[in-house]
Order: sequence, then C-alpha cells, then structure tokens
Amino acid sequence: MTTKAFQDYYPDNYSHCYGCGRLNENGMHIKSYWDGEDGICRFTPAVHQSGGFPGNIYGGLIASLIDCHCAGTAAAAKHRHDGFELGGKPIPRFVTASLKVDYLKPTPAGVELEVRAKIIEIKNRKVVLSATVTADGVVTAKGETVMVQIAENN
Amino acid sequence: MTTKAFQDYYPDNYSHCYGCGRLNENGMHIKSYWDGEDGICRFTPAVHQSGGFPGNIYGGLIASLIDCHCAGTAAAAKHRHDGFELGGKPIPRFVTASLKVDYLKPTPAGVELEVRAKIIEIKNRKVVLSATVTADGVVTAKGETVMVQIAENN
Repeated sequence: MTTKAFQDYYPDNYSHCYGCGRLNENGMHIKSYWDGEDGICRFTPAVHQSGGFPGNIYGGLIASLIDCHCAGTAAAAKHRHDGFELGGKPIPRFVTASLKVDYLKPTPAGVELEVRAKIIEIKNRKVVLSATVTADGVVTAKGETVMVQIAENN
Repeated sequence: MTTKAFQDYYPDNYSHCYGCGRLNENGMHIKSYWDGEDGICRFTPAVHQSGGFPGNIYGGLIASLIDCHCAGTAAAAKHRHDGFELGGKPIPRFVTASLKVDYLKPTPAGVELEVRAKIIEIKNRKVVLSATVTADGVVTAKGETVMVQIAENN
C-alpha cells in the first residue's frame, strides 16, 4: 500500500463525495490503494451503520463501499494505463454508469471489511470492474461496476 | 399515502437499519408508502450527502434509497398478497439478494427526490421490483432488486 490513497489524488473540485471525498468533512473517507493488480480498501463501519438487525451492516453501505472503491480503482487504473504515475498530475475522475451488488450473506458489524476490486476491462473512457466484500475471511457480497471517465477531466 | 410508512410496521428487532429503521437514532429514516400499485418514497438528501462535485448526490445514497425503498415495498406487497392489511401484525422483513442501479444522469442536490418502486413478481419468499429515482421530473437512475423474506419472520 502507498501512504496516499487514490482519492487523495482527485482534483479538488471533485473531492466532495460523501463516500470518499477528502474535502467532505462529514463524509466516510473511503480510501483505496493498490495491492498488486487489485485495488484494495479497508473500512470499519460505525456502529450506527447497521442493517435492520443491529449485528449486521446495512446494504446501502455495502453498495457505497463497492461504488466509491471501484470509481477510485478505475481512476488509478486509467491513469496508469495512460502512462502516468501517482503523485504527478491529479488522477481522472470517474462516475458510475452501473452498479450491481449480489448480497451473499449478512455482513457482520464490528469488524474491518476488505473490499477488493479487479479490473476487467479498460476501453477508452470506460473501465469495468468486479469487486468482493470480505468480513472475517468470508466473502459476503460481490459487485460489478461500469465506470465512465468524466469529460471535464481529460 | 397513509400516515404510517411501511417501515413503521417492521418488527422492533428488525427496525435498526441506518437507511430506514425507525429505531436507528442516527439513521436516514427512509419512508415508503403506497401510491396506487406502486411503492413511493420522497427524500431530500442533506447537503453533505454530495457526490464528488457538490451539486450532485453521491451514488451510494441513490443505491441506499432504491435498496431500502424496494425492501419496504416488497414487505408491504407480500403482506397484502398474503391477505393482510397494514396495521394488524407486523409486516414481514425482506433482505436484498441483489441490487442493480443504472445511473442515467447526475442526481441534483437540493431537491426532493421521488423513488418509485414497481412490483414485477411475487413468488413464495421472493419479490422482484424495479425502481426509478426522479429529480425535478427527470429520471436520473433506474434500479432492479430481488428481495427475499427472512425466515425468522414468517
């Protein structure tokens, strides 16, 4: 892992996301890093981010983690694909075209979750990724996302 | 619309969801109602629930709205399908098996969003729904969900 996360290299004006923006003071500050060829994110939900039953995490948070982490990994992957290293110019900003989450098991509260994103395809402005959410060594959710690079950020 | 929302009829022990649980003091309290044959939810996001660019809403909130609203609509639909009216025994509790969101346009901040769910199929313990998110009369996202009734809540 590097010290700075992918999201720390977003341009300032696109860094306000409640999920992952470093400039959103009320946000969750989801952070993504390289782990070999995968993007990896570790996140421990707050107690109040529970599902209907208190011992589990609510589905919207699982979706948010996959969404923000895949957007960040798409940006870092495209940046690298275009021949740039992290730390030079800001990385591009991607938005979500589609997000699919399969909830396989309840995701337990009170543990650090690992979200792992794999790059399936980089094609022009589009990056397709798959993702898993793991808690205590068990995959509790799987995701598929299609991310698209925004035009303002060539 | 009725005065009490679908989520107000959940059993107490399944009412802690950060998205829609009436007993989660820190939660968003997403509320769903009948509008004819559709489930309808109106929600005005907080300013800090922005996307990367401050004028829009973050994708995870859109996913959360569709998720919680479809779970509530599935529960109310199954309750009605089984011959019960709202206000008698608690409605069943559904969990999400899968959630798909297509983000068609940015969803603007500062306006009330309408989330509309349509019931596609009720089959045993499974309810399939589609959903739209509308802002200022424009559909900004579409969703598809598969909801499954939990066993503890027959």
